[in-house]
Amino acid sequence: MNAAVVLVEPEGPANVGMVARTMKNFGFSQLVLVNPNLTEESYAYAVHAKDVLDSAVILDSFEDALELFDLAVGTTGKPGKNYIPDRAPIMPWELRETLEGYSGRVGLFFGRESIGLKNEELAKMDLTVTVPTSEAYPIMNLAQSVAVILYELFKRKPEPAVEALKPATRKEKEKLVETWAGLLRALNYPKDAERREVFIRVFRRFVGRAVLYGREVHTLMGPLRKARIKLEECHNAER
Amino acid sequence: MNAAVVLVEPEGPANVGMVARTMKNFGFSQLVLVNPNLTEESYAYAVHAKDVLDSAVILDSFEDALELFDLAVGTTGKPGKNYIPDRAPIMPWELRETLEGYSGRVGLFFGRESIGLKNEELAKMDLTVTVPTSEAYPIMNLAQSVAVILYELFKRKPEPAVEALKPATRKEKEKLVETWAGLLRALNYPKDAERREVFIRVFRRFVGRAVLYGREVHTLMGPLRKARIKLEECHNAER
Repeated sequence: MNAAVVLVEPEGPANVGMVARTMKNFGFSQLVLVNPNLTEESYAYAVHAKDVLDSAVILDSFEDALELFDLAVGTTGKPGKNYIPDRAPIMPWELRETLEGYSGRVGLFFGRESIGLKNEELAKMDLTVTVPTSEAYPIMNLAQSVAVILYELFKRKPEPAVEALKPATRKEKEKLVETWAGLLRALNYPKDAERREVFIRVFRRFVGRAVLYGREVHTLMGPLRKARIKLEECHNAER
Repeated sequence: MNAAVVLVEPEGPANVGMVARTMKNFGFSQLVLVNPNLTEESYAYAVHAKDVLDSAVILDSFEDALELFDLAVGTTGKPGKNYIPDRAPIMPWELRETLEGYSGRVGLFFGRESIGLKNEELAKMDLTVTVPTSEAYPIMNLAQSVAVILYELFKRKPEPAVEALKPATRKEKEKLVETWAGLLRALNYPKDAERREVFIRVFRRFVGRAVLYGREVHTLMGPLRKARIKLEECHNAER
């Protein structure tokens, strides 16, 4: 997706830098600044995202920023309270769905730290989005709300870098359960077959709920299998 | 969910304050600090979350912090790279699913800004979680990653405050499509009935894709219906 972050009259120089950093963290590179307070401090807070600040488009009017985009998305921290929107704000995950497959130029507009976007600015947005927060303290820091929205737009499970990180398949999980069942049989524990089934079911549910990776399943199965084999050997030796 | 945020040796006083603020934003109140650098600056950055700092538990050892929890969740910014974890890190949304319904005491451990959690600390965690980021710049600011993880754990659609914010039902959307069809009929446009069906289908798909709220549907239907009535009146007057 081809979305730019637009900061409308950001007041804190540090926040601009933190926004640049968070943009690069989530793979965004187009920053538009309307009347920013851009200082050396901004660059310090950008850390390894100074390139995002260097390539930022700096404008002196909100209207000029609007004209850059086919779809303007406004952010608001106070949905339906002081401001009765023409269009009710959507949630960040709904924005993600809405933008999926959209190929136009998208501008994500964030307002001033103190008062956000003005009502007349919000009225010019095609969509408004809000980060759901606790009623006890709904106003987020600017860079934090940028982080949450970009995270939601970016988020995907990374390709596993190594074999170990591939999630366990249903088949692998089932093998683990069977290995467990094999151990219970070798132990002849619990003696009562019906109770043994209960023990297996409990294990299956436990495995089902767990976040498990392929290699982990094998790591878990090894000792269980080894224990079963040892027990069978013991048993045969006794006879 | 009953989760605490544990900052292990946070270096920046501002970050501690920003974390307190983001915690209150997402309804979390239990903060544990291991050897923090807590100053007046922390309080300034907490803004309206000074109470979170005031009630923070301050400890001087990581081990003491571990003992407070039934489930220790570690965060890492470099999954499977420098550090080969015993347990592969999960994604924030997987953490949410994993913790759902869990009633034990959960500690979310965040490491130092410079080096994160040490390998020997990560090894003592029950789970590790990572925020997926771009390979171009994977290291997030501490307060930003706290924000993303708490957002993911907190996130829910708020109860609509006013009637206007209720999402449109399928029935309401269908009514809107019918109203559109009624207008096309009244216009006798397009003249060809088959083409008219195409126009209706396009509108139905458009409505289906849109994020619409109940009151908005009624706001859209009003003029369409009015136009149809006017057109019918005109037509009758002509005869």
